[in-house]
Amino acid sequence: MTQTVLESATKTAIIGFDQPFCVIGERINPTGRKKLAAELEAGDFSTVESDALAQVAAGATVLDVNAGVVYNSNPNPNETEPPLMRKMIELVQGLVDVPLVIDSSVAPALEAGLSVCKGRPMVNSVTGEEEKLEYILPLVKKYNVPVVAISNDDTGISEDPEVRFAVAKKIVERAADFGIPSHDIVVDPLVMPIGAMAGAGRQVFELVRRLREELKVNTTCGASNISFAMPNRSGINSIFIPMAAACGMTSAIMNPLHEAEMMAIRAANLLNNNDPHGADWIRANKVEGESPAGARGGREGRRRRRG
Amino acid sequence: MTQTVLESATKTAIIGFDQPFCVIGERINPTGRKKLAAELEAGDFSTVESDALAQVAAGATVLDVNAGVVYNSNPNPNETEPPLMRKMIELVQGLVDVPLVIDSSVAPALEAGLSVCKGRPMVNSVTGEEEKLEYILPLVKKYNVPVVAISNDDTGISEDPEVRFAVAKKIVERAADFGIPSHDIVVDPLVMPIGAMAGAGRQVFELVRRLREELKVNTTCGASNISFAMPNRSGINSIFIPMAAACGMTSAIMNPLHEAEMMAIRAANLLNNNDPHGADWIRANKVEGESPAGARGGREGRRRRRG
Repeated sequence: MTQTVLESATKTAIIGFDQPFCVIGERINPTGRKKLAAELEAGDFSTVESDALAQVAAGATVLDVNAGVVYNSNPNPNETEPPLMRKMIELVQGLVDVPLVIDSSVAPALEAGLSVCKGRPMVNSVTGEEEKLEYILPLVKKYNVPVVAISNDDTGISEDPEVRFAVAKKIVERAADFGIPSHDIVVDPLVMPIGAMAGAGRQVFELVRRLREELKVNTTCGASNISFAMPNRSGINSIFIPMAAACGMTSAIMNPLHEAEMMAIRAANLLNNNDPHGADWIRANKVEGESPAGARGGREGRRRRRG
Repeated sequence: MTQTVLESATKTAIIGFDQPFCVIGERINPTGRKKLAAELEAGDFSTVESDALAQVAAGATVLDVNAGVVYNSNPNPNETEPPLMRKMIELVQGLVDVPLVIDSSVAPALEAGLSVCKGRPMVNSVTGEEEKLEYILPLVKKYNVPVVAISNDDTGISEDPEVRFAVAKKIVERAADFGIPSHDIVVDPLVMPIGAMAGAGRQVFELVRRLREELKVNTTCGASNISFAMPNRSGINSIFIPMAAACGMTSAIMNPLHEAEMMAIRAANLLNNNDPHGADWIRANKVEGESPAGARGGREGRRRRRG
């Protein structure tokens, strides 16, 4: 059974076919969060701190850390992002003990993050683009860490799932050339918005199954993208993730503060036989005072108040 | 693409790989409903009437009709059930226009139902038991109707999914001997409670996939059985159905009055690309007064009341 092992200084998180679905918290990311971006440029890390604590409290077992701010004072992220990434990783690892994902499209920022991160973080990401493969894979090998492989290449993102599968296969093969085993590659098959492409859901389900059966790799995705521009996004996301999990998806980069999605993942773990004795489901769904003693106590309490 | 066609006098319901998930309303069934059983023996059909109307209003596109009452006045269902089944089917078809499933373990009751039912109902059920095969399949052939095939046989219900698959295959082959095509067989792979068998969910997902890929048949199940004796049953059922649908399940015999399950099925249809233009999802999730005109109208109305 394929297992991708992530570690902090003290904790292990495993992404795997026979493991509970791995929830990777997406919140520590200034992309599309203007207030957070401004805070980071000003050296204010209060939102990073509260996001780290809240996501772990909500059940994330891994946190993604993205430092992708373009400073108003300096428009070159190759200069500004590496020190910011170092600072954010040190800060987050001082607060919470879950393993991290170092997330950047700026290669020196990935290297900066890897140089300070304790444990065995995952790199996010490599793609099938030649330049990325040649820069990122040696880094992944040097630090002996797993990596997210996004299935686009120099020709862009293909709408054809056959092409996206072929790109994933190419990345796995190139990684093997560098001595990186396939169990350290977590493929993101790319989730398109269903509002723009009606077959986007089925496409992901079929890709995930092939990636698992043919390449034997773990998979992840930016789950909420599926529902972009649709009403009741949480209603769609909380069904999309279990359906993908039924087809073999083993992790997602997502917002763990959304309770509907988290409860759906608990049910999916139970139904996929990855919740021993249903312990997690039962704990999360226990009714207060449901035990006979509790129920009696409640009624007696009410009687006393009335009497 | 496999299609199983059910008809009433005026309406068609299709169970199929490229169709919205077919919701078969389960409520018209006295099993485990003592009050309904007593009403039926007393000739009171008010609950049957209200259940028929409520289930269709809630979105069931097919209704199951089961007349399985053991009368206190006559313990022989071979005598009492056939006339009751006739009466119930005539009553339901007088009230609602969806196709029906004639559900009985008493063979003469199936025949009585078939003799009066308008359109093309489905028979529920045949099993792999020899006596059933020899009695039910000729009936199915005579009336040219589809049939639910439950994957147990004379040895009982096997916990081994290989055996359950083999039983389903045997039924499909025997049906072919009678001239019944496989698209008129809807296999119920049997859903065990996850509380009694931790692998019950995964087992169904894998069986459904094999039944679809290898036998090319539609599938159904008594969905709620999966969550028996667990807390928050609706939370489990509403994730189980989409996961099964992602693996190829095309219908379920279920309670359409449970809103969480019905909304989950709408999301599953959208994600499986069986909701053209997302029309059903958008209609079901439209926020009241969300359109500019509607919102204005609402505000003006309030202003007028205040002014």
